[in-house]
Amino acid sequence: MQLGKVIGTVVASRKEDVLEGMKFLVVKNCDFDGKPTGATVVAVDAVGAGVDEVVLYASGSSARLTRLTENRPVDATIMAIVDLVEVDGAGRYRKVG
Amino acid sequence: MQLGKVIGTVVASRKEDVLEGMKFLVVKNCDFDGKPTGATVVAVDAVGAGVDEVVLYASGSSARLTRLTENRPVDATIMAIVDLVEVDGAGRYRKVG
Amino acid sequence: MQLGKVIGTVVASRKEDVLEGMKFLVVKNCDFDGKPTGATVVAVDAVGAGVDEVVLYASGSSARLTRLTENRPVDATIMAIVDLVEVDGAGRYRKVG
Amino acid sequence: MQLGKVIGTVVASRKEDVLEGMKFLVVKNCDFDGKPTGATVVAVDAVGAGVDEVVLYASGSSARLTRLTENRPVDATIMAIVDLVEVDGAGRYRKVG
Amino acid sequence: MQLGKVIGTVVASRKEDVLEGMKFLVVKNCDFDGKPTGATVVAVDAVGAGVDEVVLYASGSSARLTRLTENRPVDATIMAIVDLVEVDGAGRYRKVG
Repeated sequence: MQLGKVIGTVVASRKEDVLEGMKFLVVKNCDFDGKPTGATVVAVDAVGAGVDEVVLYASGSSARLTRLTENRPVDATIMAIVDLVEVDGAGRYRKVG
Repeated sequence: MQLGKVIGTVVASRKEDVLEGMKFLVVKNCDFDGKPTGATVVAVDAVGAGVDEVVLYASGSSARLTRLTENRPVDATIMAIVDLVEVDGAGRYRKVG
Repeated sequence: MQLGKVIGTVVASRKEDVLEGMKFLVVKNCDFDGKPTGATVVAVDAVGAGVDEVVLYASGSSARLTRLTENRPVDATIMAIVDLVEVDGAGRYRKVG
Repeated sequence: MQLGKVIGTVVASRKEDVLEGMKFLVVKNCDFDGKPTGATVVAVDAVGAGVDEVVLYASGSSARLTRLTENRPVDATIMAIVDLVEVDGAGRYRKVG
Repeated sequence: MQLGKVIGTVVASRKEDVLEGMKFLVVKNCDFDGKPTGATVVAVDAVGAGVDEVVLYASGSSARLTRLTENRPVDATIMAIVDLVEVDGAGRYRKVG
């Protein structure tokens, strides 16, 4: 999985029928402090994530192994919202609230 | 998925039989404003996309989960046409017309 | 899929039995004019492609969805020979003959 | 597989139900001496690995072929703890203890 | 597939049970002359390859389609030992002996 920050949304009215009702989020890979610094992907949200949250997303066929995305043409899915990242013994990103 | 702009087409008369009738589009990854700036892929079109449109495409095995591409040797499929990209609270690319 | 130019061949006498009889081609990703400029992959040929031809190849599990490569340990397969690439309204690579 | 060093952990209380109880480790690709120098991934631990250990992890659909991760939306799994790396005839990384 | 040179081995005593008895080889992507110049991967050997040999390896789910690696958490497998690489009409790497 990759650590990423949700920074936006994509609206697409014309799409494969089986994608109806899915939320497409723009996710940018982030560093251990949650600062977006890397590649960008558009991921389907399976856990109720929102803009500004730090998340884990799975890519490839694994992105289809949630109830929402099963058998759908989806290659990136947010499957967890991150509370805490700890690296080299020190707390780094910590979810607020 | 990746955000990309359709910039061209590929014609290939000699191909696997099961690919007959598919439209191959040249897609270049684009930024949030729809400006093509990244890597290029040739994707099969599953939603009636055309040149100059900004689209979402899925890669890998997920590219085969549309009616058109099921069980076909296809690793990139356009599965949505983008209407709007919103990042950091601001509208960026917006489909015209 | 990626657009690539066939630039060579690989001979391997000791290999998995199920690969017997397959042709391994060296393919280099090319630009819209068919000039090889990018990454190199060794792909199995499913359509009778030869050296110097511009082709489309599929990667990953999709590379196994041709009659020849089904259930084989193959991760890149040439599934089309390109006749014409058109980008931004202008013809670029065009197959000769 | 990639050779990586476990450098941290990720805590995520809100996640897909089927991920309950999994340990998410931050793994950084390392050189032959075990020094972390490359890309970072968050992997599920299938073998009891801990921080500071050098491990092998599998990516993609192969990451789901452990008892723990079967059919889960997981795209990176630690499936071995490395004892010794030998390159060009010389011992490089060696697990202590 | 990628062309790589076997440059070392990895020993891992603690691992998923189904990996018991597999040989893990350090493979570095090589140029057409067999000189290792690129990315490194740890691959399972399915064809009796040894250190210093130039090989083809498959990645992803295709790496599991050998008798040895079937249904195993393995994402890179050596499936052929290279005898000859020919590029632009000239012989380049040639296996000795």
